[in-house]
Amino acid sequence: MGSDSDLPVMQAAADVLEELQVSYELSIVSAHRTPRRLYSYAEEAADRGLKVIIAGAGGAAHLPGMVAAITPLPVIGVPVKTSAMSGQDSLLSIVQMPAGVPVATVAINGARNAGLLAAQILGVTDLVIRERIRVFKEALEAEVLKKVERLEAGEITAETVRAAKSR
Amino acid sequence: MGSDSDLPVMQAAADVLEELQVSYELSIVSAHRTPRRLYSYAEEAADRGLKVIIAGAGGAAHLPGMVAAITPLPVIGVPVKTSAMSGQDSLLSIVQMPAGVPVATVAINGARNAGLLAAQILGVTDLVIRERIRVFKEALEAEVLKKVERLEAGEITAETVRAAKSR
Amino acid sequence: MGSDSDLPVMQAAADVLEELQVSYELSIVSAHRTPRRLYSYAEEAADRGLKVIIAGAGGAAHLPGMVAAITPLPVIGVPVKTSAMSGQDSLLSIVQMPAGVPVATVAINGARNAGLLAAQILGVTDLVIRERIRVFKEALEAEVLKKVERLEAGEITAETVRAAKSR
Amino acid sequence: MGSDSDLPVMQAAADVLEELQVSYELSIVSAHRTPRRLYSYAEEAADRGLKVIIAGAGGAAHLPGMVAAITPLPVIGVPVKTSAMSGQDSLLSIVQMPAGVPVATVAINGARNAGLLAAQILGVTDLVIRERIRVFKEALEAEVLKKVERLEAGEITAETVRAAKSR
Amino acid sequence: MGSDSDLPVMQAAADVLEELQVSYELSIVSAHRTPRRLYSYAEEAADRGLKVIIAGAGGAAHLPGMVAAITPLPVIGVPVKTSAMSGQDSLLSIVQMPAGVPVATVAINGARNAGLLAAQILGVTDLVIRERIRVFKEALEAEVLKKVERLEAGEITAETVRAAKSR
Amino acid sequence: MGSDSDLPVMQAAADVLEELQVSYELSIVSAHRTPRRLYSYAEEAADRGLKVIIAGAGGAAHLPGMVAAITPLPVIGVPVKTSAMSGQDSLLSIVQMPAGVPVATVAINGARNAGLLAAQILGVTDLVIRERIRVFKEALEAEVLKKVERLEAGEITAETVRAAKSR
Amino acid sequence: MGSDSDLPVMQAAADVLEELQVSYELSIVSAHRTPRRLYSYAEEAADRGLKVIIAGAGGAAHLPGMVAAITPLPVIGVPVKTSAMSGQDSLLSIVQMPAGVPVATVAINGARNAGLLAAQILGVTDLVIRERIRVFKEALEAEVLKKVERLEAGEITAETVRAAKSR
Amino acid sequence: MGSDSDLPVMQAAADVLEELQVSYELSIVSAHRTPRRLYSYAEEAADRGLKVIIAGAGGAAHLPGMVAAITPLPVIGVPVKTSAMSGQDSLLSIVQMPAGVPVATVAINGARNAGLLAAQILGVTDLVIRERIRVFKEALEAEVLKKVERLEAGEITAETVRAAKSR
Repeated sequence: MGSDSDLPVMQAAADVLEELQVSYELSIVSAHRTPRRLYSYAEEAADRGLKVIIAGAGGAAHLPGMVAAITPLPVIGVPVKTSAMSGQDSLLSIVQMPAGVPVATVAINGARNAGLLAAQILGVTDLVIRERIRVFKEALEAEVLKKVERLEAGEITAETVRAAKSR
Repeated sequence: MGSDSDLPVMQAAADVLEELQVSYELSIVSAHRTPRRLYSYAEEAADRGLKVIIAGAGGAAHLPGMVAAITPLPVIGVPVKTSAMSGQDSLLSIVQMPAGVPVATVAINGARNAGLLAAQILGVTDLVIRERIRVFKEALEAEVLKKVERLEAGEITAETVRAAKSR
Repeated sequence: MGSDSDLPVMQAAADVLEELQVSYELSIVSAHRTPRRLYSYAEEAADRGLKVIIAGAGGAAHLPGMVAAITPLPVIGVPVKTSAMSGQDSLLSIVQMPAGVPVATVAINGARNAGLLAAQILGVTDLVIRERIRVFKEALEAEVLKKVERLEAGEITAETVRAAKSR
Repeated sequence: MGSDSDLPVMQAAADVLEELQVSYELSIVSAHRTPRRLYSYAEEAADRGLKVIIAGAGGAAHLPGMVAAITPLPVIGVPVKTSAMSGQDSLLSIVQMPAGVPVATVAINGARNAGLLAAQILGVTDLVIRERIRVFKEALEAEVLKKVERLEAGEITAETVRAAKSR
Repeated sequence: MGSDSDLPVMQAAADVLEELQVSYELSIVSAHRTPRRLYSYAEEAADRGLKVIIAGAGGAAHLPGMVAAITPLPVIGVPVKTSAMSGQDSLLSIVQMPAGVPVATVAINGARNAGLLAAQILGVTDLVIRERIRVFKEALEAEVLKKVERLEAGEITAETVRAAKSR
Repeated sequence: MGSDSDLPVMQAAADVLEELQVSYELSIVSAHRTPRRLYSYAEEAADRGLKVIIAGAGGAAHLPGMVAAITPLPVIGVPVKTSAMSGQDSLLSIVQMPAGVPVATVAINGARNAGLLAAQILGVTDLVIRERIRVFKEALEAEVLKKVERLEAGEITAETVRAAKSR
Repeated sequence: MGSDSDLPVMQAAADVLEELQVSYELSIVSAHRTPRRLYSYAEEAADRGLKVIIAGAGGAAHLPGMVAAITPLPVIGVPVKTSAMSGQDSLLSIVQMPAGVPVATVAINGARNAGLLAAQILGVTDLVIRERIRVFKEALEAEVLKKVERLEAGEITAETVRAAKSR
Repeated sequence: MGSDSDLPVMQAAADVLEELQVSYELSIVSAHRTPRRLYSYAEEAADRGLKVIIAGAGGAAHLPGMVAAITPLPVIGVPVKTSAMSGQDSLLSIVQMPAGVPVATVAINGARNAGLLAAQILGVTDLVIRERIRVFKEALEAEVLKKVERLEAGEITAETVRAAKSR
């Protein structure tokens, strides 16, 4: 991530990778404040054995695209929500890459999905991880189906949801 | 892709996969007009041996997200430019996925990058493909450096570029 | 609705249907987390005797459009307000449907109007319901006319409105 | 429609109604230039036996909402694409209706879908029309499936699509 | 104004008219909930001796444009800030009027300026009012010049401004 | 207007003033290239007998607001459509004026309405002009009603409108 | 700055200039409320020995562009965040200047960067200031590198960042 | 500039620098395709004697910000207009820089202003250049004043302007 202030957002990527038992490292690389570190980090990533890079940044968010410019690994970009533009600046700065240098962009503040996408990428050849993703998706489905029942049983109402949100 | 009218855009994904000698299949799956085909296609993809799915669509672009809802494979979404909203509707419909179901989104009309990203994903474990990507990136660099020389030599001018564009 | 977190918004559709004495069912169908349920729900809707479907979702909101792809019934879409994009992503994901598959879209968070529109649709042939809508519209008018009087009488002021809003 | 200049867009609603053998009338009612006609048209619509009203307008598009304010019938709004704002002004002017007065909004220039939605609304109780919609949807599906075959057979290529578009 | 909920915003128009000693009436006319009142109000306005009409509304804001469609008087439109779209829907619904029916639009929530503009319009021929506007503008200038001095004297600082805002 | 390149747009204001027999002057005042002329023009306008000022400008469109800062006369702003932002920059630069300095903003490229609004402002006290506006509005209405007849008679079709537009 | 209400934002420009030991003056010049002061301030700036002007304003933000129209000095514009449009109106009003009159625009509320840019401009020939900027940039880098270590040491976590933000 | 395809836009910066007799070099540095060249170019710029850097790029435009991250010189960013988003992506990617690393952003496609701003920056201490800027501004003013005369003389009309534009 580009700044420690992005950590509350980016932690969700780490969390889902732990749920899926995928090892990862978490660090700060600022495109604008540590351009040399950006360079060396991106250049060494493949040789160090990293397989996918998740880069989150906000505003004029150059980190994901610059990492993608340097490494041959797939790079996932997370547009971090910003105060003035709600992350629309981050989104466009990350997704609108020129031909030749893709960044796999997820939703604004979509760090959890970035972690999941990284796992899916590993799951292309690692069938243990792919199986965990299948289980993960089934759990998502089961959770909704349970809520359908609880809604029918009157255990979920507009009031209980509002109360849960304000907590 | 969701419609044959997207083919002129999506062909660029096929083209770059051919350049990188990655095999692929190209077909039409419409989320809205062939919902059953969407289901069966996405459900069988992994078992048929597909490894990455590229889905391009425009407007209320539901194809990439719905495929991602069904398959455990990584899904790359290409927002196709639209007449009324220039693809901003496509972009938001594809990238703003809820937690649990990521779509790796590229730029509006960024099909070439979608193909390249698919190759990068395969290159995570297939080092032959990764090497081809390295070569591809070096060629990009070399091409720009050659243009730097031609610009200095006066062979590239505003006029020659304008003329090349209007051709 | 696509998630129980949408219930505080979508409840308003149920409420107005009760006011108009139109029977309804309220459930959760997630396009992305329960794609099979989406399919079966939409496919069986007409045969089960449903007449209109109201689907609310936020972000990359695919539920209304996917339901409309499968059922021949009219589908009303409610774009739910989102944190990062205030529901503009939801609105475009729902309204910009391709030719052949319409979704009757209402305002962001406009669930009350979705319920009312469903009743109007039933009122096309059910003249009892249509009469209730006439009465509903007259009540709206009467309520405003009463406020006109209360404003003139000094009972409504900027202060009383502000106080009522902050309550 | 609000102006005869909207006719090339709105004709598509009439065309699909003819395909589905649903009778209709086509006229011009300008909210801003013929406000009295707007009033009488909307007020008399239900008594004249109209069942659904489709209203298309562009820019500060007040026609659909004003008709909906007056009639108890369901009103479908078509945001017409505009020169300066590509119809985003039309879309917001039509869809963002206040609670109590819904307009069933379709995509920018989505007149064909407006006609189809009107037919779906009639099909709620008219099972002959509903059956025609089922057939219509099957034809859509069949048409895509045929294109899948033609694509595989090499009869559809990026070049043939581009050529068809420029015609 | 279209609703009593707009009163906290629209009161500012009344306030500045009082400061400038211009008589006015303040009422509620809802385009969507009281279309008949809209019609009669706009039709009688000129004959009742009104000279300028200020209309404020939010969302799909049809009040200013519909009043302007009916009356030959100048109509000033105030786009009221909305929850989901921050008043951008209101602004476009009011300002993008078709040729033939202008609405003099002010800023989002700019009711004070609407009152001032009404006074300027009266001041075109009423030189007493025009003189009051001149004095008003001089007072604005004097107020800023005094703040320049207070800033230089250290009486205004970032802290005093922040404190004043949070009060 | 701020530049002679705005003349094709702004001419429409002059044209409608001629139709309504309201005298006017047409000139170029550039806020950015002739700031002194801007000052003297705005400062002398009232004393020279001008009654309303119409100012059209594009992009960072400062002309209307700066004129309004200096003169006590009502100022009408016309946002001129721009190449990169379609006039959305012009619109926001003109309409979002701070409290104390209103600009009566019309639609993007809405110069015809600016002229009409100027006439309406003069018509507040000049009943001859007001009468001409009434007649103008009746002519608008009559023109639409005639088109209703011609549409019914089959003289106006999608084809005739398309042909008229492409001319 | 255009108003004392902008001081909490603009103070950051003053602060960074003090850090870099660059002398400055801080004052209020309102384009709309003190147009004469704007004129004299901008006209005298160069002769008074000012070298760079930073102008911050919000909404229809005309101050930076009008100052740039009058002075030959470089003008830096700071778009101040606004309530209704989050500063997008300010940004477009400042950055979209016509050819001939540039404003060096920084981010919304980017006053700190405006101060830094002013110092960089002085540093073009004043090598003492340029050296301070080098040191400033190194300090930025060092600060991030230290956070990298603290993150690795577990001293920075999502919780500590959230806590620091809410303080 | 980031690509030779930007040359037709960026040439305008070179042209105005020639008019003002300011020496410059023009080259291609692609942030994404030649990241090493970006690095070395930015790192050596100050030592090579460059004083101001103008960087133009489109889409996810990272060139200006990355150059600014590395060099202590002032960096001017030119957002190049793009096909899908008209340069709004370029603008936000360039202007929304984080605190600590400013980019002096000009209008979309505003290369001429970038050149002029560079000259103004040099003119801070080089009074010969500043004098040329004064003369340049006077010429702008004179040109407009001449057009005022020609407009009054009837030599400039809507027709002559339209004809000149279509040429």
